[in-house]
Amino acid sequence: MTTMKIAVLGTGMVGKAIATKGIELGHLVMMGSRSASNEKAAAWVAENGDRASSGTFADAAACGEIVFNCTGGQVTLDVLRSTGNHLSGKILIDISNPLDFSHGMPPTLSVCNNTSLGEQVQELLPDTFVVKTLNTLNCNLMVNPRSLADGDHHLFLSGNDGDAKARVSALLQTFGWRADRILDLGDITTARGTEMWLPLWLRIYGVAKTGAFNLKLMGIE
Amino acid sequence: MTTMKIAVLGTGMVGKAIATKGIELGHLVMMGSRSASNEKAAAWVAENGDRASSGTFADAAACGEIVFNCTGGQVTLDVLRSTGNHLSGKILIDISNPLDFSHGMPPTLSVCNNTSLGEQVQELLPDTFVVKTLNTLNCNLMVNPRSLADGDHHLFLSGNDGDAKARVSALLQTFGWRADRILDLGDITTARGTEMWLPLWLRIYGVAKTGAFNLKLMGIE
Repeated sequence: MTTMKIAVLGTGMVGKAIATKGIELGHLVMMGSRSASNEKAAAWVAENGDRASSGTFADAAACGEIVFNCTGGQVTLDVLRSTGNHLSGKILIDISNPLDFSHGMPPTLSVCNNTSLGEQVQELLPDTFVVKTLNTLNCNLMVNPRSLADGDHHLFLSGNDGDAKARVSALLQTFGWRADRILDLGDITTARGTEMWLPLWLRIYGVAKTGAFNLKLMGIE
Repeated sequence: MTTMKIAVLGTGMVGKAIATKGIELGHLVMMGSRSASNEKAAAWVAENGDRASSGTFADAAACGEIVFNCTGGQVTLDVLRSTGNHLSGKILIDISNPLDFSHGMPPTLSVCNNTSLGEQVQELLPDTFVVKTLNTLNCNLMVNPRSLADGDHHLFLSGNDGDAKARVSALLQTFGWRADRILDLGDITTARGTEMWLPLWLRIYGVAKTGAFNLKLMGIE
């Protein structure tokens, strides 16, 4: 894959993992946050050399050819509104989950069942190619899938545009994901399914005491 | 396992699969339905010999030492209300899912996120040991887990009583479930997780065109 300009919205664990993977793969990566002087973004840039940069969410959205939404689900829509129209015509890889921690642990979902955050993002940005993926597992596995069972576990894609999903799948394969373990579930409404996996993920995490797990679908060819 | 009296509430595919498995394992099985003269129950009894019987939901609940709820999630609470106090002190294995088909396909869940049908069943029957399990896969796999990857895939348990879960686990092992693939998630509130797996299960089913799949958790010891 040729060098790309990648934007990562969010400076948390997920954002750092994705942004660092982008640098490792030789891409130019801009990390976006609320403030152009964000300290976590500045620290990440300092650690990652000349191909790393940072700016506001709008700066990053303007710079990126492909954009990862790694913000928390409770702020995702506000963040995306702040990017102006810079996401128009671009692929937005949406990793966010609508986890609501305000009622205690484990979190509930602020939207689910008859809609999803992925759909709300697509509705907000009708000219953007939203692809929901990577939201079903922890950030270490997102970028190092071969660290578990040599990559023999599954990842899902949801999105309305087949070409965008194919491009995202190709990028994910450069992360280490096996093509035959990336399952295209269909349009963006299928994000309801993957977002609603989180409550079960959280309960498994609660007993397994590790986030380094994922599901492998048995019986699917 | 010694011969038991098993009650199965429901005459659909799930009820028939569970009831027939009980007969195959040498148990006495009563299938319960709304009417003592239910034709599907009568046909099942005719096919399954002397150890098979049928009656009303209340008849079955009174007869069974252990009771499977195989009714549809939209009628489960009404069915259980009709069993009088015959479930008091007994284990109720709740397989139901709150699938609501009234808004089209795929179904949504009529309860989820901050409660679950499993919890509502336990609240309705405070003197019953409710164990939620088997609701995460199709009925053929419920009773023939070794037909897929020699049983190398996971099943979940949710319930408030450890002894009840241990007895259910032992029974499930006679179905063919591997002890090391039965994961106790914790109390009955964890049923939220397994019931919310259904929307993803349905989407996977939609693309896989088979229900003969299940998840194997990779990275869990």
